[in-house]
Amino acid sequence: MRLSKRITNLTGGGSDGWDVFRRARAMEDAGKPVINLTLGDHDIPTDPDILHAMHEAALDGNTGYPLVPGADELRDAIAERVTERTGVPTGRNNVVVMPGGQGALFAAHAATCDHGDTALFVEPYYATYPGSVRGIGAIPKTVPARPEFDFQPQPQDIIDAIDMRTRSLLINTPHNPTGVVYSRETLEGIAKVMIDRNMWLISDEVYDTQVWEGEHLSPRALPGMADRTLVIGSLSKSHAMTGSRVGWIVGPEEAIDHLINLSTHTTYGLPAYIQDAAIYALEEGGEIEDDIAERFRQRRETALSILEKSNDFITVPSQGAMYLMLDIRNTGMTGEAFANALLDSELVGVMPGESFGESAAGHVRIALTVDEDQLREALTRLVRFAEAEARAA
Amino acid sequence: MRLSKRITNLTGGGSDGWDVFRRARAMEDAGKPVINLTLGDHDIPTDPDILHAMHEAALDGNTGYPLVPGADELRDAIAERVTERTGVPTGRNNVVVMPGGQGALFAAHAATCDHGDTALFVEPYYATYPGSVRGIGAIPKTVPARPEFDFQPQPQDIIDAIDMRTRSLLINTPHNPTGVVYSRETLEGIAKVMIDRNMWLISDEVYDTQVWEGEHLSPRALPGMADRTLVIGSLSKSHAMTGSRVGWIVGPEEAIDHLINLSTHTTYGLPAYIQDAAIYALEEGGEIEDDIAERFRQRRETALSILEKSNDFITVPSQGAMYLMLDIRNTGMTGEAFANALLDSELVGVMPGESFGESAAGHVRIALTVDEDQLREALTRLVRFAEAEARAA
Ligand SMILES: Cc1ncc(COP(=O)(O)O)c(C=O)c1O
Ligand SMILES: Cc1ncc(COP(=O)(O)O)c(C=O)c1O
Repeated sequence: MRLSKRITNLTGGGSDGWDVFRRARAMEDAGKPVINLTLGDHDIPTDPDILHAMHEAALDGNTGYPLVPGADELRDAIAERVTERTGVPTGRNNVVVMPGGQGALFAAHAATCDHGDTALFVEPYYATYPGSVRGIGAIPKTVPARPEFDFQPQPQDIIDAIDMRTRSLLINTPHNPTGVVYSRETLEGIAKVMIDRNMWLISDEVYDTQVWEGEHLSPRALPGMADRTLVIGSLSKSHAMTGSRVGWIVGPEEAIDHLINLSTHTTYGLPAYIQDAAIYALEEGGEIEDDIAERFRQRRETALSILEKSNDFITVPSQGAMYLMLDIRNTGMTGEAFANALLDSELVGVMPGESFGESAAGHVRIALTVDEDQLREALTRLVRFAEAEARAA
Repeated sequence: MRLSKRITNLTGGGSDGWDVFRRARAMEDAGKPVINLTLGDHDIPTDPDILHAMHEAALDGNTGYPLVPGADELRDAIAERVTERTGVPTGRNNVVVMPGGQGALFAAHAATCDHGDTALFVEPYYATYPGSVRGIGAIPKTVPARPEFDFQPQPQDIIDAIDMRTRSLLINTPHNPTGVVYSRETLEGIAKVMIDRNMWLISDEVYDTQVWEGEHLSPRALPGMADRTLVIGSLSKSHAMTGSRVGWIVGPEEAIDHLINLSTHTTYGLPAYIQDAAIYALEEGGEIEDDIAERFRQRRETALSILEKSNDFITVPSQGAMYLMLDIRNTGMTGEAFANALLDSELVGVMPGESFGESAAGHVRIALTVDEDQLREALTRLVRFAEAEARAA
């Protein structure tokens, strides 16, 4: 039976560049002592206090149909957090909860792009971006962010990508996979293009609690942007709640109203007892949040202290998120060849830059998702490997 | 800022016919002793044993990213249940979990219909059906199921609705809002049209554990149908887990593969600890399930014993699901006028048939979602009201 073109084209065909990840997984499953730094999945379990809040709510009977927009208290807590952090007055009606940042990405594109419209996103990019656009019948198109600009996207590259049917640009800061945090200059440049070309900005800020250098600036706070920005947020990274699938969109009330309608049909809302856990996390979970960020901060420092000893690769400025990107071009290898050989000879899994887009060719990404001892061991092996390869090159 | 046509047209404009429900809610909120039989939300909380299974899984650390297709054990449990109940050999690869039956309805349409295709569904219908079609950019079109045929859809009415771009038909048995269960003859008639016209059948069977007369037959079990049927299932009604948002699609492997891709982008799967709760519910929850069905069976009997005393309206054959439909046409009122007046004079909330589609005009739907004492009281008032109106007519 014929399936829809939408769904059969979702992945765009071709290799997804995740072979190294799958090989690393298979080796682990076969019992090999692989240190796997490929995926951005938290190794930190959700805090028991959050889980207890959830269980109490469930036992208390909060097991019926949820409020689709999100419980009032949850929307208020998110609005307050956004107001405090960005200075943009944000109320309950600017917020709709979604199943994770991923659900929010999908819905934000559904709200802004029609069938056949073009949706831009910055490359290198998080793996699900093109599929999130194709899933709603729009056409994904990349804007390169180049290593020579430290992966900060440039206005002219955005302008060059715009066509007659471009409705939106998706950006992500702090950035996966590069670990850069967009500067005020970058964001002002982006905002100007959005306003000049009357476009929506979809701003993925799921790593906003993981900033190691500089400051996270939400582009919604820039002049003229609150009416044309949909901010994607999530508790996945900030509160180690990846599995709970709690995210949200913050934006103009009219957009939020329609997004609530959409949610009625895509999911009928998030489990109400999970919403109660999210309220607890946001209202009482400050220490949990700080503690998680601190762990990643320490891992990053540990990693940098090892990586900086070597001259055989260059670390992309590591400013935020739970990733480090290494420029390994002076080994003479592609990111893919490097990652594959590293996995085989040192049993260390990293992601090839190519799997995130052309501009990250010759790079590899390290996810800081193992404890410090393992991280130290993995990076020591990586440095040893890269040095040998660079000498041979 | 311009939003997508998809999202701004989602509800199709106009009244949604849910004014009586909203008025009943508002009166309740204002402290009036309304007995509210409008919505199909379980009054039964999720069983604590299921909630404990969830909590244990979460404390045990199952809080990271879920497997998007569903945990193997959950997919196996669903496949086994379907195999047992329908006789159609069904394996893990025929199953993908979804956020509730609602999430499954949305995804099934996304998988079968492209932008501009026509998706049929039977009228009267569950409220979210047209929006689930519009949400994916397809065009919703109704097939009437008429009171003179006890709301069983007729092949000719389906054929009459088919156009050049029709891809799918959505049916629902046991049926909300009418409470009828489709006969073998009805389903064979539908199957023949699907095969003749090379269409997908989307079969919403979320009430399959609530059958009071006759037998539930899944059309996927009919000859030639397993390859063209997507079955929508859910734990919402069978296990009183509405708030947990656990549903699934069962269908051909190729469709399921693509649906998993879609889920990666719409939600990134269901919380893994909820999946563990669902495994518990399916594997150990047989008694819980039977007990829930039994409660509705008793409520239905209680309700019928009261309703049958009156000759002033006719009860649509009540064969399944948690609803009763009354034909109140010999009061001379529309369903809407009846429901509004009943709410005002007797403080009993029921849904006007019109809110589910034209064919149910002159009817009202009663949801069996209050305990027996309240139900008895509500229906006694309803009978009194209807008799007075019929005498006056
Ligand atoms: C940039 C980015 N956006 C969104 C997500 C999705 O996060 P979630 O759906 O868990 O909130 C991720 C997850 O890794 C990510 O890296
Ligand atoms: C016919 C029908 N289908 C689907 C649903 C959605 O159920 P859920 O998403 O809770 O599984 C309902 C809920 O009332 C329904 O009545």
